[in-house]
Amino acid sequence: MADKVKEVESLESILESNLPPDALARVWTILYGTTYPPCGLTIPPATVDLASASSIQVKTHKFSAASEQLRPPRIVRVGLFQNKLPLPTTTPVAEQRAALHKLAEKAVTIAAQAGVNVFCFQETWTMPFAFCTRERLPWVECAEPAEDGPTTRFLQQLAQRYNMVIINPILERDGGDVLWNTAVVISNSGQVLGKTRKNHIPRVGDFNESTYYMESTLGHPVFDTAFGRIGINICYGRHHPLNWAMFGFNNAEIVFNPSATVGALSEPLWGVEARNAAIANSYFACAINRVGTESFPNEFTSGDGKPAHKDFGHFYGSSYVAGPDGSRSAGLSRISDGLLVAELDLNLCRQVRDKWGFRMTQRLPMYGELFTKASKPDYKPQIIGEREKPRED
Amino acid sequence: MADKVKEVESLESILESNLPPDALARVWTILYGTTYPPCGLTIPPATVDLASASSIQVKTHKFSAASEQLRPPRIVRVGLFQNKLPLPTTTPVAEQRAALHKLAEKAVTIAAQAGVNVFCFQETWTMPFAFCTRERLPWVECAEPAEDGPTTRFLQQLAQRYNMVIINPILERDGGDVLWNTAVVISNSGQVLGKTRKNHIPRVGDFNESTYYMESTLGHPVFDTAFGRIGINICYGRHHPLNWAMFGFNNAEIVFNPSATVGALSEPLWGVEARNAAIANSYFACAINRVGTESFPNEFTSGDGKPAHKDFGHFYGSSYVAGPDGSRSAGLSRISDGLLVAELDLNLCRQVRDKWGFRMTQRLPMYGELFTKASKPDYKPQIIGEREKPRED
Repeated sequence: MADKVKEVESLESILESNLPPDALARVWTILYGTTYPPCGLTIPPATVDLASASSIQVKTHKFSAASEQLRPPRIVRVGLFQNKLPLPTTTPVAEQRAALHKLAEKAVTIAAQAGVNVFCFQETWTMPFAFCTRERLPWVECAEPAEDGPTTRFLQQLAQRYNMVIINPILERDGGDVLWNTAVVISNSGQVLGKTRKNHIPRVGDFNESTYYMESTLGHPVFDTAFGRIGINICYGRHHPLNWAMFGFNNAEIVFNPSATVGALSEPLWGVEARNAAIANSYFACAINRVGTESFPNEFTSGDGKPAHKDFGHFYGSSYVAGPDGSRSAGLSRISDGLLVAELDLNLCRQVRDKWGFRMTQRLPMYGELFTKASKPDYKPQIIGEREKPRED
Repeated sequence: MADKVKEVESLESILESNLPPDALARVWTILYGTTYPPCGLTIPPATVDLASASSIQVKTHKFSAASEQLRPPRIVRVGLFQNKLPLPTTTPVAEQRAALHKLAEKAVTIAAQAGVNVFCFQETWTMPFAFCTRERLPWVECAEPAEDGPTTRFLQQLAQRYNMVIINPILERDGGDVLWNTAVVISNSGQVLGKTRKNHIPRVGDFNESTYYMESTLGHPVFDTAFGRIGINICYGRHHPLNWAMFGFNNAEIVFNPSATVGALSEPLWGVEARNAAIANSYFACAINRVGTESFPNEFTSGDGKPAHKDFGHFYGSSYVAGPDGSRSAGLSRISDGLLVAELDLNLCRQVRDKWGFRMTQRLPMYGELFTKASKPDYKPQIIGEREKPRED
């Protein structure tokens, strides 16, 4: 379905290949808040070769902060990995998972060579995004225990080997046979630091996820790692500014948003939402999306009046990092596997808070009270009208 | 200072004059969520001539909704007006205000001919944005009573003449000699429907507004007009998602954001924040910014280590309308006066709510409770760490 349209490489590639240098620089500054070319990182040639041999696009970006007298810079490198399914969805699930593990090991190795300290996969990265089908078997077989499942155990080894924090977003099966959309945080020591779950579950188009799992009851935990305080806002939670805000109030400096979303539905929103969260909360936001089109064995409908079909469109990748200062990196490819390595000086968060003062001016007690009132069934909205008239909707 | 750099007309003009048609269409769809060229409106030739003679750029945009069985379309045209100061800031304030009234009458007349139902000016439109100076006289002489001041009276006539709701953002002096940053809403009957005030006051760079006025105590009123339910989120309030959210909970369908902001400070944020609010709250957001560079008689400093100077940079215009579906209009010019006429089908708000389900999934009672907790001095953030370690910042 989606592949009938030839998918373009990226917004940035169109701009870079068509705009004269002056125009490109102006456009880039307005759109991305940096000079052009943006500041990148040097990656060892052997790493570039390894990535190339693995068909993994590598892009880099550097966020700097002013130097301070009392705090040394707090430099962290994050790695955002986006990927297609290496095998068809009709392959036995164990083989699919094994192939994804193999790809993951390559990606983490490349990231380690590029100096990455905190690595994050896309949402439910060990399986197809099969929730469009509303089928149980075999997809629920992709679910694993968070603390002691095969994927967590596999990544614990990599985390320890590379002294790297790894965020592992999976479909979780808990001890009571309840499924959850979960991200496990593995410390650079190889220990499981904890987990968080998806706070907001979509019921939109093919994203039939409420068929499979419910909203998290774990709150908005922030993980205090050796490389900064990190939160994970899974996928659809990026549409909810209040959700992003709570990670801020829990002192996150970096919030990852592992996602799976398709072009026809959400692409114009993609560059807006995580970036707005970075700005509003003065932290770094790392948005990761799947790539490619996933075709399923049985056809399904999408509740949109169109005929049944076997895929639900193109996952457009375009993973990026947004800074608290409103600047952002270029996006990864819309069509290929990619690793975005971004260097962050975490001191920038507090510097931006001090400059823009959003926390100082946020009037949080008032909003706590107002939202509590607004959430009551008998809430009377504050509406001023010159007359009584029937509500039109 | 700012005019040493030649300011470009607009992001869109660079794209339109440099990209081949196919590339332009792809870029536009990703960035703005519409086909290219976007759907516009037909403006009478005489109106185009009048605007041209008045050096007011006119752009149009049309947001459509699906047709429904039980609700007819609810079509409203909004007019966003951005302008430079017609006279130097050294002119007597009465003359400056008279010149602005004259320009306003032209703009409202053009808007009326273009079918505008709801018109909004930029922030404190009757005066220079003089808060950078920290001087009192003569700038506080620009303040007026909201309900019975000369500008409100002047606009009441226009509102009645053209059957138009007019939003009048001014510096208000109340009966107790307290200044406020206020927007007066004038009904299409010519009556003052009410007023709202700026909820969040900046203390950033040259925006020394807390020197002059305090945060609103009027809440987040939504005005139920003949042309839809409208809210006004003044300037710096656009950085606060909780503020945008309350206008949604009070049932706004259109939220105007009359602003004054300069390029070096905020331009990369401009296209993100109001648009994110439109998406997150499933309403239309109308962002309006000043244009041009305002030079003041006495020099002032900006708290940035740089020498004293007489202007604080270029107001970059770029006013735009964002829809609840994630699409947006092109921006007005970065350098000239302009009127953006956008046609909205207000039915789109509920259609997007039904499609995306952000309200259904928002978990507002939880956030009311969490924000109340987070606002307490003894709030303990939800932080998970593998060890106790000293906080690095």
